Amino acid sequence: MNPGAKGTGTNGPGARGPLGVAAIGYAFMGKAHSNAWRNVASFFDVPAIEQKVLVGRDAGQVADAAAKYGWAESATDWREVIARDDIHIVDICAPGWMHAEIAIAALEAGKHVLVEKPLANTLAEAEAMNAAAAAARTRGVQSMVGFNYRRVPALALARELIAEGRVGTVRHVRAAYLQDWLADEQAPMTWRLRKETAGSGALGDIASHAVDQVLFLLGGQVTEVTGRLQTFVNRRPGPDGPEDVTVDDAAWATLTLASGAIASVETSRVATGQKNSLRLEIYGDKGSIHFDLENLNELGFQDATAPAREQGLRRILVTEPDHPYLDAWWPQGHIIGWEHTFTHQIRDFLTAIQAGSQPSPSFEEGLNVQYILNAVEESAATKSALVHVADRTSKGA
Amino acid sequence: MNPGAKGTGTNGPGARGPLGVAAIGYAFMGKAHSNAWRNVASFFDVPAIEQKVLVGRDAGQVADAAAKYGWAESATDWREVIARDDIHIVDICAPGWMHAEIAIAALEAGKHVLVEKPLANTLAEAEAMNAAAAAARTRGVQSMVGFNYRRVPALALARELIAEGRVGTVRHVRAAYLQDWLADEQAPMTWRLRKETAGSGALGDIASHAVDQVLFLLGGQVTEVTGRLQTFVNRRPGPDGPEDVTVDDAAWATLTLASGAIASVETSRVATGQKNSLRLEIYGDKGSIHFDLENLNELGFQDATAPAREQGLRRILVTEPDHPYLDAWWPQGHIIGWEHTFTHQIRDFLTAIQAGSQPSPSFEEGLNVQYILNAVEESAATKSALVHVADRTSKGA
Amino acid sequence: MNPGAKGTGTNGPGARGPLGVAAIGYAFMGKAHSNAWRNVASFFDVPAIEQKVLVGRDAGQVADAAAKYGWAESATDWREVIARDDIHIVDICAPGWMHAEIAIAALEAGKHVLVEKPLANTLAEAEAMNAAAAAARTRGVQSMVGFNYRRVPALALARELIAEGRVGTVRHVRAAYLQDWLADEQAPMTWRLRKETAGSGALGDIASHAVDQVLFLLGGQVTEVTGRLQTFVNRRPGPDGPEDVTVDDAAWATLTLASGAIASVETSRVATGQKNSLRLEIYGDKGSIHFDLENLNELGFQDATAPAREQGLRRILVTEPDHPYLDAWWPQGHIIGWEHTFTHQIRDFLTAIQAGSQPSPSFEEGLNVQYILNAVEESAATKSALVHVADRTSKGA
Amino acid sequence: MNPGAKGTGTNGPGARGPLGVAAIGYAFMGKAHSNAWRNVASFFDVPAIEQKVLVGRDAGQVADAAAKYGWAESATDWREVIARDDIHIVDICAPGWMHAEIAIAALEAGKHVLVEKPLANTLAEAEAMNAAAAAARTRGVQSMVGFNYRRVPALALARELIAEGRVGTVRHVRAAYLQDWLADEQAPMTWRLRKETAGSGALGDIASHAVDQVLFLLGGQVTEVTGRLQTFVNRRPGPDGPEDVTVDDAAWATLTLASGAIASVETSRVATGQKNSLRLEIYGDKGSIHFDLENLNELGFQDATAPAREQGLRRILVTEPDHPYLDAWWPQGHIIGWEHTFTHQIRDFLTAIQAGSQPSPSFEEGLNVQYILNAVEESAATKSALVHVADRTSKGA
Repeated sequence: MNPGAKGTGTNGPGARGPLGVAAIGYAFMGKAHSNAWRNVASFFDVPAIEQKVLVGRDAGQVADAAAKYGWAESATDWREVIARDDIHIVDICAPGWMHAEIAIAALEAGKHVLVEKPLANTLAEAEAMNAAAAAARTRGVQSMVGFNYRRVPALALARELIAEGRVGTVRHVRAAYLQDWLADEQAPMTWRLRKETAGSGALGDIASHAVDQVLFLLGGQVTEVTGRLQTFVNRRPGPDGPEDVTVDDAAWATLTLASGAIASVETSRVATGQKNSLRLEIYGDKGSIHFDLENLNELGFQDATAPAREQGLRRILVTEPDHPYLDAWWPQGHIIGWEHTFTHQIRDFLTAIQAGSQPSPSFEEGLNVQYILNAVEESAATKSALVHVADRTSKGA
Repeated sequence: MNPGAKGTGTNGPGARGPLGVAAIGYAFMGKAHSNAWRNVASFFDVPAIEQKVLVGRDAGQVADAAAKYGWAESATDWREVIARDDIHIVDICAPGWMHAEIAIAALEAGKHVLVEKPLANTLAEAEAMNAAAAAARTRGVQSMVGFNYRRVPALALARELIAEGRVGTVRHVRAAYLQDWLADEQAPMTWRLRKETAGSGALGDIASHAVDQVLFLLGGQVTEVTGRLQTFVNRRPGPDGPEDVTVDDAAWATLTLASGAIASVETSRVATGQKNSLRLEIYGDKGSIHFDLENLNELGFQDATAPAREQGLRRILVTEPDHPYLDAWWPQGHIIGWEHTFTHQIRDFLTAIQAGSQPSPSFEEGLNVQYILNAVEESAATKSALVHVADRTSKGA
Repeated sequence: MNPGAKGTGTNGPGARGPLGVAAIGYAFMGKAHSNAWRNVASFFDVPAIEQKVLVGRDAGQVADAAAKYGWAESATDWREVIARDDIHIVDICAPGWMHAEIAIAALEAGKHVLVEKPLANTLAEAEAMNAAAAAARTRGVQSMVGFNYRRVPALALARELIAEGRVGTVRHVRAAYLQDWLADEQAPMTWRLRKETAGSGALGDIASHAVDQVLFLLGGQVTEVTGRLQTFVNRRPGPDGPEDVTVDDAAWATLTLASGAIASVETSRVATGQKNSLRLEIYGDKGSIHFDLENLNELGFQDATAPAREQGLRRILVTEPDHPYLDAWWPQGHIIGWEHTFTHQIRDFLTAIQAGSQPSPSFEEGLNVQYILNAVEESAATKSALVHVADRTSKGA
Repeated sequence: MNPGAKGTGTNGPGARGPLGVAAIGYAFMGKAHSNAWRNVASFFDVPAIEQKVLVGRDAGQVADAAAKYGWAESATDWREVIARDDIHIVDICAPGWMHAEIAIAALEAGKHVLVEKPLANTLAEAEAMNAAAAAARTRGVQSMVGFNYRRVPALALARELIAEGRVGTVRHVRAAYLQDWLADEQAPMTWRLRKETAGSGALGDIASHAVDQVLFLLGGQVTEVTGRLQTFVNRRPGPDGPEDVTVDDAAWATLTLASGAIASVETSRVATGQKNSLRLEIYGDKGSIHFDLENLNELGFQDATAPAREQGLRRILVTEPDHPYLDAWWPQGHIIGWEHTFTHQIRDFLTAIQAGSQPSPSFEEGLNVQYILNAVEESAATKSALVHVADRTSKGA
């Protein structure tokens, strides 16, 4: 049993004992999610959980990974695992094209589901998942999509400040997510660079986080968008010679919110020197907010209601007990790592399960991001002209 | 006579004595240009000049300004002034709607002309000015448009590094010019907020600098653009009640360069907390460049050919004798102010006059920026769809 | 058994099975060390370990802590625990005045010992511990003092760069450790503010880390020091009224190294706004190094052998696979938290145990820091005059 | 006549016409002072002045410099110049060993005197100058020492904030002035590296500014000090072979203020990568202040009375009309250069002359800095033991 487990959920599956967890996938995301499952109860009061099974395709590798990452068992057949009575939660860290099938099956089997973003590779899959989630919810089965950056303490604080009116009415947002792992034109071909397997490039992979942040921080709906996509390196070395890259290296979009605010979103995987830079700037009539994921323990805040003589962008080191999630960690000034965005995500997921409430972001919220990204692609395909999003979103509601 | 004047121009007007200068306009830009004329010869070897006349509409005010800013005389009729034999250079700091008439008259009168940006408020005027400049050039009469940020030492260094291949092939550029003097919705109506007088809003006023920098740093042509314009505060207090704001508060554009590079350009005068932040990020396959006008003595440079283990964005304090313009100033580490972008501009203007060569940026380059801004407005007026710039530019060539 | 444990130590206690670990103390440091024990094997290849027992004075609280932090059992009598055959490692997180008794007993019982810094509250205790460690070492029993900041990847990288000669001959170092939790004069009296219980104030608590870094980064010996101590708030509220503060709030020292380099060390717990700022600046004749613990994933490096025109302090984001410890973690640009300095410390401790080699920093190195801090206090007590350290250090060798 | 000159002084020399100015010295400081004289009236309302004479030893060079820097005439004999009736102000930019003779003669001749820092190379000279200044003051003749960094707008703002109690009671200050122009051990021997000509090294040259800032920002007296001096490069190449360096490359001091605050002062001319970094950190019980001369248009301010949740070090861009000196310059966000610390200094000097009041810093204040620096040297010569300053200062009062 997981150390420190205390509470017992009162709703949904597993109501009378520890919640058994199965995770599917043991690569980058599987490692990060496992770390969160292993540690969440050491820092937060959460319902009792057990790290039951890690699922993967290669029996030997998944057994090693399970041992290393704290899982009691490993398995290779996810269908068998979701059929088990002692599994109450399914955490899907497999690639995007597998999300729909596993998530729908798990929800139908009565398991709470956490699925990595993006919700799915296609709108049709995402809509089916959303429908399955809505149906499951009526039976007390919860679901959540893993936009983990909502759980960066600095961004949770940003949302609070904005909600409290500290920046006033938001006029515009500058969002960018910049990486550089494709800057080298000799970087090899991967499944992430093929439209069939990846859905899209930088847009779906990382700009999706930026779009989700716009929604998370400001609330409301995106009504229309413009978009541009660009592939700078069209062919990359494959095992048998050069192959065509069929997704975007970079993308540019503008989003109109129902409130009248406008957000620009820019993303690139060829932004040399930018390693994992999700940057957000929110400009309101009373203040502004600045953030960069490479310094995720800091938030910039300018209070424009202060006298001009002493105004300035202040660097808030988000490590105080008063800051979101921080009372669980270390004394002030002791920073936490990127991986704990997942720890916080699981804490909130478990807390919602315990309370019998819908965790956020829901599959519907994940679908909403998909609609927006789809509209960006549609705009890009039609000379970047404005595309309305509103009508389509209502379909998903 | 101006202190330190030494050389004597060998081409064009004023070839046999000090160059007499007249400046038209004594507001913000007039003050900045006057400062440059008053100081250029104290730091640089330039042809001999005399600060002859400052021209303005209000006789009393322009006389005061002339005394304060170092001009020998003041005057109210620019036509009389450009007719004077002892005036060889006309520096136009008047508002944009006056540029064409004065510049064309001055060029036809055989005076070298420096005109503040933007070249003109309308394309028709800008084209006429360009034609006049081309004609004058054949007679040894030079002309220049005042995109002064080309003379920020850090940006001149950036251009050198890019030209030397230190960032490799540029894939994309992020350009933004953000201010906040209109963030307060009670900020009063001014001529700058009416389309008739200002031409456009943030786009023409400050994004023009960002567009010029893209051209300055990368070279080449912009072939197509997308654009969005937004006015967040539609009515502002005038002397007799609320008045309509008819220009943009903010704008977003993407520019495609002939090289295949893409630049995003974003501008705002409601970006709370941003006082004068022209930011540039240039991403190439071998390195990147970063700049912010609020720290104009610094340049960020990442050399991606260094081993990953010791790579990082370096802050170059651009105050070394080896840096552009800096050997004229102070020892290393002693920063210079914003105003000396104008001092450098006049130094280069005078040096070109002396050499009988075309100063840069020429009216043609200024016209080119106008074409691009016009195309951005055209895109904004047609649902942000891509607009080709290339054909139209050829008209100006 | 701890997940992922693989290897088996071939030397010293526990040679034929997993190493049983007992930790003593469950407050701040106990929580941090427990986190490291719980996670080390999920990221690093280390000998097999088991989190056996957590020891504390309050039976109920320590039982809760043990459950929460991943320990199989809890206990209240450390003597009983170190007598157990299934315990091979004792990790001492108890306050400084208990270090000597526990550590010496554990070493004599044949247990490997990790002890939090400072080694002890008095020189006599520290010397006794060092003697016990030397004796134990001859029997293959290892010991280490927990200067965890040696395991900040950025500082490990700094040490490598310095050792490789990248900053040349070091002339001087600026070290500071600044916090502000005592800035409020109403902050209550605690045992940390009494000389009897704490030994010293900011000097021993945090400046000890700064002094250790000077030794870690530069190597060599400190031969003489100057010191000043200051208490700004002399009385603080206790439960029964104001009590005397008998330790320093702040301290200043200079250290002469045998190499001729000079380090300044400054520390404060009343440096308003500084939360946990251990700052280091190393100036050599070929380059310099900069670090701040509040941004512990970054290292500043200036290579002064580059042309002046393109020199600058570069911000190395220390998240590359080539950086110390980083290949175990996340992809580039994904930062790690403060707590993993302990994870790395335990990894290195276990690796040394496995190899039968002396972990570093040894008790002797810890004693060396104590000599230096003692000399600083001695200087402070004699009008800040220079005090030689060299002779006394030889006593501890 | 200088452009823009308006007022007429009502006290002291030159009361009935423009003030004639003579400057002595045309090297680095002469160039900087000349720039200030040439421009002050273009930005500030000051008494009418005329740039009459520039004095130097080499007739040809000083004539060129005079022409370049805006002086009507040049001369080689300062005694003749200070005897002229049309000279009312003498600005001494000559090396330190000439200060006393010129300043005393000028004051006795009834000229207002501005002298570059340090006041003099020896205490005896400084005391004589102070006596001459006191005597002259009774005759309405003013004097000032050029600690120009008191006129950095950000530091003037810092002083205001401290005086208003915004940082509360100051506990300690960290002051450092770091340069690197001697980092290269092959940098040649100069007069600045000989005790006979320079008085001291980094201590007198640049740490004097840091000490002056402590006094300027906090007010009050320094009562005792400790000091260390170090020369890292003992011999440097001279024209005829290696020569001995007889001044310090670096220095460390602590200053006790009468208020109980403690300031650490550190200085170096071998701090590789630091070009002109005068850094100040002031820690009070209600807030803190941060400054770096390499970014002189910015001030860091932390208001510790704000809720912890939104506290942070704010970067105030000191370019607002409400900031000291700034209403004379450019719109917000447009930075000014290092040289305008001198422009502001002359503005304040002229304003004080006009008002018949003592400009600050007075010779007495300059002497006070000398006493402190002398005590630092005395401490350094006696094993860094504390040296009392108070008694000696009273001699100078």
